[in-house]
Amino acid sequence: MCYAHDHNHHHDGQTVLTVEQDILQHNNLLAERNRGYFEAKNIYALNLMSSPGSGKTSLLEETIRRLKGRRPVYVIEGDQQTSNDADRITALSVPAYQVNTGMGCHLEAGMVNHAVKHLSPSEGSLLFIENVGNLVCPALFDLGEAVKAVIVGTTEGEDKPLKYPNIFHEAGVCIINKTDLLPYLCGFDIQKLRDNILRVNPRTQVFELSATRGDGMDAWCEWLLECTNT
Amino acid sequence: MCYAHDHNHHHDGQTVLTVEQDILQHNNLLAERNRGYFEAKNIYALNLMSSPGSGKTSLLEETIRRLKGRRPVYVIEGDQQTSNDADRITALSVPAYQVNTGMGCHLEAGMVNHAVKHLSPSEGSLLFIENVGNLVCPALFDLGEAVKAVIVGTTEGEDKPLKYPNIFHEAGVCIINKTDLLPYLCGFDIQKLRDNILRVNPRTQVFELSATRGDGMDAWCEWLLECTNT
Repeated sequence: MCYAHDHNHHHDGQTVLTVEQDILQHNNLLAERNRGYFEAKNIYALNLMSSPGSGKTSLLEETIRRLKGRRPVYVIEGDQQTSNDADRITALSVPAYQVNTGMGCHLEAGMVNHAVKHLSPSEGSLLFIENVGNLVCPALFDLGEAVKAVIVGTTEGEDKPLKYPNIFHEAGVCIINKTDLLPYLCGFDIQKLRDNILRVNPRTQVFELSATRGDGMDAWCEWLLECTNT
Repeated sequence: MCYAHDHNHHHDGQTVLTVEQDILQHNNLLAERNRGYFEAKNIYALNLMSSPGSGKTSLLEETIRRLKGRRPVYVIEGDQQTSNDADRITALSVPAYQVNTGMGCHLEAGMVNHAVKHLSPSEGSLLFIENVGNLVCPALFDLGEAVKAVIVGTTEGEDKPLKYPNIFHEAGVCIINKTDLLPYLCGFDIQKLRDNILRVNPRTQVFELSATRGDGMDAWCEWLLECTNT
């Protein structure tokens, strides 16, 4: 489960704060352990974060099809329930490990550490970590990844970076997905979304693509290959 | 901020659990206070929950236009940042109060209690509480509402009720929005989404509508008028 700070109203705000600091500190230690593991085996890990339904798994499927034979790929899937996403990935003959968070709203470094040991990714591989669909909580939890990527669908409107600034601020990469629906979205302005992303995080790298139709996938995959070109 | 249980791995799981129970219990007490306030003034309160970008505010705007002159309407808006949504509602001459949760991922009963006292809704009014866009955390926090409504866009795929069962399980109403995009979504099956909703929660009332084009809005608004017909 999860809860927000409401220290002003809560009876014992100090206890809450202390417990939260403990949990984040504990997570940070395990994230560094993951980082060391990834360094040792030259694994490039991406933490994919977005709202539910913005197309993370479809993007992964299409990315895997294009990278096949060029890089070894491994996937960790996070969801409250079901192994649907891991099933979709293993159908592409790529090793995937499903983490079910139950009441939890994000992945933590300890869950990733457990999953990584199960997968045992090969030297020089790409590791995609698909977080629980959530634009708030995953932003706070370092998983030891090389880069955080936020995916936002054109159908979600232009204002999401302003309303959920923390996660966009943390993202080294920002992918605008579902560009195939642009002709049917009355009043949506992709340039405004792009401007809002860069307003919150001027250094992020923005990709525009349609995972289902393939537009823009080449640039994204080239970027991934360059990141892992050592 | 928020965090998931990871009691197996955390050093002091008992402390975490106790703090969580304290917070939920504290929230439940304030939710009952809200419930009493709503009973006293015959206010019908709806807690609107969804992923970011599923169209909660657009649905509210169109609903308000149609209920104008038939019921007094008040709105509480929850977002991490910005007052964009409250601005959109007040532009329709309806009183709105914006709550910014900062790092928080959901509204709590105490925030609603504060907002309600600021708005002071009139006798027999409809109070819409638009929660922070999040399919996980808001499910746990009773706000004192009469009914929880989950909105899910056709663009989010059929599997969301299975992957995020808690929130769908709590919902008395479930609204499938963005039906205007159905012709452009390859492979999406609205009947499958409907089946998945009812599989998780057989008693929920399902509406299919397009807030932007108006299809299905009549049935939803009729239902709201009946709920407040005393």
